[in-house]
Amino acid sequence: KSLTIGLIPADGIGCEVIPAARQVLEHLSSSHQLKFRFVHCDAGFEYFQKNGTALPQKTVDTLRNDCDGALFGAVSSPSHKVAGYSSPIVALRKHLDLYANVRPVISTKDPQNPSQKSVDMLIIRENTECLYIKKEQQFTDENNQVYAIAERRISQKASERAGRMAFQMALARDSIRQQQPVEQRRWTGKPQVTIVHKSNVLSVTDGLWRETIRGVYENTPEYQTRINLEEQLVDSMVYRMFREPEAFDVVVAPNLYGDILSDGAAALVGSLGLVPSANVGDTFVMGEPVHGSAPDIAGQHKANPIAAIRSAALLLENIGLPGPASNIYNAVDATLQAGYKTPDLGGSATTEEVTEAVCKYL
Amino acid sequence: KSLTIGLIPADGIGCEVIPAARQVLEHLSSSHQLKFRFVHCDAGFEYFQKNGTALPQKTVDTLRNDCDGALFGAVSSPSHKVAGYSSPIVALRKHLDLYANVRPVISTKDPQNPSQKSVDMLIIRENTECLYIKKEQQFTDENNQVYAIAERRISQKASERAGRMAFQMALARDSIRQQQPVEQRRWTGKPQVTIVHKSNVLSVTDGLWRETIRGVYENTPEYQTRINLEEQLVDSMVYRMFREPEAFDVVVAPNLYGDILSDGAAALVGSLGLVPSANVGDTFVMGEPVHGSAPDIAGQHKANPIAAIRSAALLLENIGLPGPASNIYNAVDATLQAGYKTPDLGGSATTEEVTEAVCKYL
Ligand SMILES: CC(C)[C@H](C(=O)O)[C@@H](O)C(=O)O
Ligand SMILES: CC(C)[C@H](C(=O)O)[C@@H](O)C(=O)O
Repeated sequence: KSLTIGLIPADGIGCEVIPAARQVLEHLSSSHQLKFRFVHCDAGFEYFQKNGTALPQKTVDTLRNDCDGALFGAVSSPSHKVAGYSSPIVALRKHLDLYANVRPVISTKDPQNPSQKSVDMLIIRENTECLYIKKEQQFTDENNQVYAIAERRISQKASERAGRMAFQMALARDSIRQQQPVEQRRWTGKPQVTIVHKSNVLSVTDGLWRETIRGVYENTPEYQTRINLEEQLVDSMVYRMFREPEAFDVVVAPNLYGDILSDGAAALVGSLGLVPSANVGDTFVMGEPVHGSAPDIAGQHKANPIAAIRSAALLLENIGLPGPASNIYNAVDATLQAGYKTPDLGGSATTEEVTEAVCKYL
Repeated sequence: KSLTIGLIPADGIGCEVIPAARQVLEHLSSSHQLKFRFVHCDAGFEYFQKNGTALPQKTVDTLRNDCDGALFGAVSSPSHKVAGYSSPIVALRKHLDLYANVRPVISTKDPQNPSQKSVDMLIIRENTECLYIKKEQQFTDENNQVYAIAERRISQKASERAGRMAFQMALARDSIRQQQPVEQRRWTGKPQVTIVHKSNVLSVTDGLWRETIRGVYENTPEYQTRINLEEQLVDSMVYRMFREPEAFDVVVAPNLYGDILSDGAAALVGSLGLVPSANVGDTFVMGEPVHGSAPDIAGQHKANPIAAIRSAALLLENIGLPGPASNIYNAVDATLQAGYKTPDLGGSATTEEVTEAVCKYL
């Protein structure tokens, strides 16, 4: 099988971790009769500074017309307001209709840290609306007071498809678990989906979000019999996630809450440098590490490539290649267990050393 | 000195922790030549169910005209959308123009848990706008698709006063620290204020928030010389708060981010049942525990009264009575150190036992 993958390293350590993920995919291809072709695509704040746009149309066209999937690195944010700049990752999610951001957060057993909580959570973040629609404007009122308004949009359609993805993934996780020996399963109960919202304040928008997802559940007998539906207010969710992360299986959240929750969850498993994501639509998938561009460590060979490597696996998983994906996951686990760790995990391995270890364990 | 305090227990465990706080204040009054008069005020979801309103005008009038300060308990949220219901705490903050929600999060040394991180953070949450203005509406578009829009408002004025409060409190905390022996200080550097925002996506609203607070700083030589100004994107803030809570002194955040951050910070210090807040305006202060109404444990004598008791102290502190306030704080610390703990802290003491212990240590 031959696959064309668009690579958009963008800024900072994005330019180090995307090549690392590419190296792992290349190494994998020989053993799986897969053939990867890689296409470099421009985007990012650095690109904006040189060219006046953060996302050239060519990148969108190449991804849409020539690629079977993509991997995105990370973008830097300007440290002051910059006219004309707009986040390329937010735009890409919208242009390619990648409506769900799938973020598995899983703790690996760490012999040096036995008190670490056991986490095996899947966050589904709605990826196209909420405050991310970027309808914002500044006004001056009749008393010369300046204020600004942003619109937060929640639609039935987006809520429905995020919800449906959460239920489907809860069932898929359950099937995989059923194939594991009981003592290896972290989650032993019925599959569970937790809806995150703040409908005690946002009764209309988050009310629509919550009622729509509840509706999908109530109208699908298979979900009702096989899945437990729970809900949490977003503030309380952050609290409970830190106190009892083992109480969550699949979590579905509107865009901004999902953004915040997934960074929070990353803290639970030791480092943002470990957590992958996939931006998933009906016809395209783009892997993306959850971490940012980390300008403070860029170019120093310190970036943890694991989030990007796992994002490559998540990409494969979501385009119908679970076998090669699980190969990568296992090689990453072996690498961590063998003690190859970048500085964010308290180690001193370089990006390159960790990447080579993953290739070795493939 | 004679003070009239409005008590609004509202729902669930609010009806247990507010009487506990009252008992502590009564006990305190004898030793400080303070005289408290308490006025009960109605509000809450239960009250709504009986009377069709969650916040009777009489409560607002009593607080505004007859009281020197108030203590609010907690409100329950309806588990499904309820027509006509609107959160009374959000309304009170607005009606009384309590523009800053001040939330100190402090870890107490726990001999049983030496690995607990040292936290001494003050979160200033803007308390009147952001998504809490409750301008929301549902629409159906030309293709019969249902969607809803909420407005998020950020004004220069609200940002400015939240920012100013943060800088002032950073200086006040520093003065108190200077009176402590060096080895007891948790924060040894220059006072620090961290602005939380998400201006990489919300460049207009969060841009205004951030630039306004930066402006206050840049135009006030005292702040510039004495305070370090930092900033964090809200997602990264949650991550960093969990990884290195000791890196934060004063944190200032728009309403919703502040709501989420303070629950998250509560997880760091062991329990939501410990964290107080004060809703502060120029002419009125209302103490309020950060926890909710916890219907699952209401009426079982299990509620931790400490958040409410500390909120009473925070109220006193903010109406110019730091002496009696610090008496309460010390009595609470002594109570915890002596091992009086409700179930949320892993103990088995009742609400009443903890309250009596605090009175004893006063
Ligand atoms: C860079 C930023 C726009 C982005 C987001 O908020 O979605 C990032 O935080 C993420 O989580 O992918
Ligand atoms: C009850 C709810 C409206 C409230 C809020 O979101 O402000 C609560 O969570 C709080 O933090 O005081």
